[in-house]
Amino acid sequence: MKSKNLRFGVLGVGRIGKIHIGNLATRIPGAELVAISDIAAAELETVATRFGIARTFADYRDLLNLPEVDAVVICSPTDQHYRMIVDAAERGKQIFCEKPIDLSLEKVLAANEEVSRRGVRMMVGFNRRFDPNFLKVRETIAGGQVGQPHILRITSRDPGPPPEHYIRASGGIFLDMTIHDFDMARYLMASEVTEAYTRAAVLVDPMIGKAGDWDTAVVTLTFENGAFGVIDNSRKAAYGYDQRVEMFGSGGMVTIANNTPDTHILCDSAGIHTALPLNFFLERYAESYLREMRAFVDSVVEGKPVPVGGEDGLKAAAIALAAGKSARENRPVKLAEIYREVAHTCPVS
Amino acid sequence: MKSKNLRFGVLGVGRIGKIHIGNLATRIPGAELVAISDIAAAELETVATRFGIARTFADYRDLLNLPEVDAVVICSPTDQHYRMIVDAAERGKQIFCEKPIDLSLEKVLAANEEVSRRGVRMMVGFNRRFDPNFLKVRETIAGGQVGQPHILRITSRDPGPPPEHYIRASGGIFLDMTIHDFDMARYLMASEVTEAYTRAAVLVDPMIGKAGDWDTAVVTLTFENGAFGVIDNSRKAAYGYDQRVEMFGSGGMVTIANNTPDTHILCDSAGIHTALPLNFFLERYAESYLREMRAFVDSVVEGKPVPVGGEDGLKAAAIALAAGKSARENRPVKLAEIYREVAHTCPVS
Amino acid sequence: MKSKNLRFGVLGVGRIGKIHIGNLATRIPGAELVAISDIAAAELETVATRFGIARTFADYRDLLNLPEVDAVVICSPTDQHYRMIVDAAERGKQIFCEKPIDLSLEKVLAANEEVSRRGVRMMVGFNRRFDPNFLKVRETIAGGQVGQPHILRITSRDPGPPPEHYIRASGGIFLDMTIHDFDMARYLMASEVTEAYTRAAVLVDPMIGKAGDWDTAVVTLTFENGAFGVIDNSRKAAYGYDQRVEMFGSGGMVTIANNTPDTHILCDSAGIHTALPLNFFLERYAESYLREMRAFVDSVVEGKPVPVGGEDGLKAAAIALAAGKSARENRPVKLAEIYREVAHTCPVS
Amino acid sequence: MKSKNLRFGVLGVGRIGKIHIGNLATRIPGAELVAISDIAAAELETVATRFGIARTFADYRDLLNLPEVDAVVICSPTDQHYRMIVDAAERGKQIFCEKPIDLSLEKVLAANEEVSRRGVRMMVGFNRRFDPNFLKVRETIAGGQVGQPHILRITSRDPGPPPEHYIRASGGIFLDMTIHDFDMARYLMASEVTEAYTRAAVLVDPMIGKAGDWDTAVVTLTFENGAFGVIDNSRKAAYGYDQRVEMFGSGGMVTIANNTPDTHILCDSAGIHTALPLNFFLERYAESYLREMRAFVDSVVEGKPVPVGGEDGLKAAAIALAAGKSARENRPVKLAEIYREVAHTCPVS
Repeated sequence: MKSKNLRFGVLGVGRIGKIHIGNLATRIPGAELVAISDIAAAELETVATRFGIARTFADYRDLLNLPEVDAVVICSPTDQHYRMIVDAAERGKQIFCEKPIDLSLEKVLAANEEVSRRGVRMMVGFNRRFDPNFLKVRETIAGGQVGQPHILRITSRDPGPPPEHYIRASGGIFLDMTIHDFDMARYLMASEVTEAYTRAAVLVDPMIGKAGDWDTAVVTLTFENGAFGVIDNSRKAAYGYDQRVEMFGSGGMVTIANNTPDTHILCDSAGIHTALPLNFFLERYAESYLREMRAFVDSVVEGKPVPVGGEDGLKAAAIALAAGKSARENRPVKLAEIYREVAHTCPVS
Repeated sequence: MKSKNLRFGVLGVGRIGKIHIGNLATRIPGAELVAISDIAAAELETVATRFGIARTFADYRDLLNLPEVDAVVICSPTDQHYRMIVDAAERGKQIFCEKPIDLSLEKVLAANEEVSRRGVRMMVGFNRRFDPNFLKVRETIAGGQVGQPHILRITSRDPGPPPEHYIRASGGIFLDMTIHDFDMARYLMASEVTEAYTRAAVLVDPMIGKAGDWDTAVVTLTFENGAFGVIDNSRKAAYGYDQRVEMFGSGGMVTIANNTPDTHILCDSAGIHTALPLNFFLERYAESYLREMRAFVDSVVEGKPVPVGGEDGLKAAAIALAAGKSARENRPVKLAEIYREVAHTCPVS
Repeated sequence: MKSKNLRFGVLGVGRIGKIHIGNLATRIPGAELVAISDIAAAELETVATRFGIARTFADYRDLLNLPEVDAVVICSPTDQHYRMIVDAAERGKQIFCEKPIDLSLEKVLAANEEVSRRGVRMMVGFNRRFDPNFLKVRETIAGGQVGQPHILRITSRDPGPPPEHYIRASGGIFLDMTIHDFDMARYLMASEVTEAYTRAAVLVDPMIGKAGDWDTAVVTLTFENGAFGVIDNSRKAAYGYDQRVEMFGSGGMVTIANNTPDTHILCDSAGIHTALPLNFFLERYAESYLREMRAFVDSVVEGKPVPVGGEDGLKAAAIALAAGKSARENRPVKLAEIYREVAHTCPVS
Repeated sequence: MKSKNLRFGVLGVGRIGKIHIGNLATRIPGAELVAISDIAAAELETVATRFGIARTFADYRDLLNLPEVDAVVICSPTDQHYRMIVDAAERGKQIFCEKPIDLSLEKVLAANEEVSRRGVRMMVGFNRRFDPNFLKVRETIAGGQVGQPHILRITSRDPGPPPEHYIRASGGIFLDMTIHDFDMARYLMASEVTEAYTRAAVLVDPMIGKAGDWDTAVVTLTFENGAFGVIDNSRKAAYGYDQRVEMFGSGGMVTIANNTPDTHILCDSAGIHTALPLNFFLERYAESYLREMRAFVDSVVEGKPVPVGGEDGLKAAAIALAAGKSARENRPVKLAEIYREVAHTCPVS
């Protein structure tokens, strides 16, 4: 391999960590995976063996202290992100951080400032921006093929709810699940959200309600450009992972269908039958995880800004907070209101 | 023909009137069209000649005075509906009335009471309930194939806005256009709407804004059963008449695609191309107009209740009023609030 | 109604006869149905009552002798067609005849000559030419959107085989069923068939084999323009009536999907499910039966040639005979060979 | 990595060779790529550098002489296959050979015998068997969901013809292009072909005719089980790479659609538009190339028979020869006739 490879350390070897490790190990030109860290020793060893990774650490700070590590991928639980970002930035590492940056807007702001102050890059893992379907929608809109945007619809439904401990640590459906849709809404609309109105309920599993969260939600967004957006979420779609968007504008509409494992069509006496969607995000977004990491590597290597930065992480989180507040209070909540609350503690750009 | 035919008079020979006249003239077993009325003499004569209708009247009351007329179809401008209903009910005619019954909830209530008092039937022209696509969605839901309803989505977009004079007399987008969707929402959800929240804007044509109306809207509905509904409307879809619904529930989802004039698929070097939707309601709902009139005839002949009654007209109108109020005040509006306002004048059932 | 109406008599009140009677009775401007004939007295009466037809005859010649009858629709069993055509032509009636004209090419030729000699028009009931899907394919090809035709594929499968007595009188699968596809092939290719090669088998029902017929066939056609066609037939498709064509050419491809009763899509844990095709020709081609009769009326009224004439009936039959001979002898059979055989008896145009 | 890795050499670094090299280098567990050979020195070096391959050889025999090479992938021009197979088998290497094994049936037979005599495995690169779409069709048929097979349709059209020198060395359309479809036909039908009838023409490019080949073909196959198959081919589909199959049987039908780069649907005033198919085999069959090599590695490592063997290569070639003969002589050709011709030289199993 060539000497100018970007050498990576991955912090956290859970579900998402393994995706990034697999990609970095073999499928990303210009990247070299040199170390991984996790407090779960057995899992760490399994992963290191499987992908042939030389160095493993229980303490992520030991990994960060390796001078040969140029960049880190933060895939730890959300409550670890902030500390890891600060520590990595301090050591001059380039940072790729999974979403959300943090559950608190104050800490998101602080993380962004630290990254900026240290002069490193931080890319946030809104991987769906790199999915071929969503990309095509974005390009179609950007190319003017649907004219001025009027109504954006996003349907985002999981095949089944996560376990209770996950729900409890997740920050709630808006910061955990809908945050992807909030980012997608900003990305596709190319305009900022100014207000959110949410109706939310517990229709899937009472456990989720007991944990203080919702499993079903409809969010109406108002954008600066005068257009509207509607997001609907469910924690459980019986037919699998449902990931669709539709942009309607003055010149037409562009939408996408779900991806399936194959294109077969079976016709029998009972009807016409086709395949269910790819079941969950690991399969559905395999390509986008790969592409986002390639984009991160390219932007670092070429000295360009990352395509999804801390500001994007901040804004998606702010919409999530507005959506949650709206659901609790059954009234439209302006984003300015959310930013004002934070400004009591620290100033917003 | 057999002696037990239901003999019809049609009041109003405009766009919708002609549909009902054409159907009654030839395609509805058990129905016989004997008279039509309209103040537009030339058009009245043209229609009478084309469909071979013996008797024509400038004044609808002369038609109502014909003893051989068993039933009337009211297709006049909305502001005529109330008077015609009262006059027809007084003469014991069975009534089919186009939607909306009236722009004022008080008069809708009064019309319903008059019909009830006179012991005649009144069916309201929510024809989409008789469309094969929507019917199939209803049957699928009723058959339990999507489980408990969670989220209903309705997309209803016209191919182009009506002229200014129509807009000004229409009662606004919610009473004129969305009212079909409000009825469909109740019909598919089989549960009453308790609250509406609306975001509306003028994005299509400034004329519409000057006329005091909106052309683009997103309405969130809350139902008694705990489920949510989202309706999005536009007065102008560049690709034609867009009429879709999607019901998502605990067991799955059912949705429909638009109807097209043919099923061709053209593959050339530029892409894969298929036909645009049938352009507007006369083509798209030709079948449902026919079926609803058959249903009306059958219910009268067989002495059964009409499938869509004055109560349905009332409830759809109430939702429309709530949606409009919500749009003006940017807050969720409960249906109870709308009904309370009316109760100052007259009591609601 | 206007005096210049074309007054019709229908000969035969079976399955197809009823379609034409229903259409002529109410849905075809410029047409007036005045008489029907059939040897089945009870059925004749039922139909007459249902559609309010004044005059009925057991003997079709009595109907033909009515001077007020301008045109006749021949829907009797195939073996009656020839005699009825000759008798109707003799009396100067305009003729619409169901396909096939006759099972023998000699008699088809003779019928065509008689019609020509008497100076009346004869249209042959290849109704599919008037179906919106096939029409669109034709227009797309004619408009040059697929370039020079290279390969035509036709799939034509029935939902289930007819009863044995029908099979035995049908002239075999090629003259009874595939003849529609042969006509469609000529229509879409706009070029004559020069050769046919057929593989045929009895895979659906041994009864069909015992009756000397096949139920499954694949026919390869060669056209004068150098292109090829492939037709596949089955007497039984478990999923219903399958009617598709695909034209592939130098510039692209155009194809059609089956028509369905609705456009619903059901997504549940077992898969994505849509509606079966409209089950059989009465439903599937309801529109084309209506349109072909309108076209017949228009061509007579306007003094223009009929859109599908006796020559078309002749050529489709000749291809059917070539296809059958090819199946029996397992070799390609040229159309010239079929025409030569007939020429022994009578000259071909 | 684990010591029991299967160590690979790849012979030929052309278009297909690069696919296998890329897969073996990084994406196939249990495989290790240790050497590559090609007479094109510059290209060999480029590939070696890009994938970090230690050893390169101008002469494939030097590669075969490496004792550490367990298995070879033969991706050289077809006329090299036979010699490489014999040499590799002699040295006890496991063999993966691209299709066709050879253009002469005699040499295919001889290669198969040599492989058998030396006790090594040889897998033939009919990669489409490993494509998720075709696999699903196969599973659906095998699972009985379409009942007894009656009619198989395969459409296989390239986006554009290869250059003249390729055409001249290819062995003709049937041995070069249709051979994949012949293998697929056997695979899906699970029954042997007994006869072929072909219509072929030069409709795309006169150069192809001058080279003694055809660019457009329709082949009818008869199978031992009584079913029929139809394959249509073109060297140029304006809309891209068209790869579809459809199996129709007593219980229903299963078919597949083309794969596309995304699932977007654009609706504008001109129509509804979706993406073209993935353009050519490198993109379309990327997954199947990967899966077939994994299957090869697994079968060698686990000591099981390869899923596609020399016998499959032989039979597909024999059908190709029958199809070509049929095209030249315009008559159905039995497979037995082809095998008899070969038997003059060497006996067939």
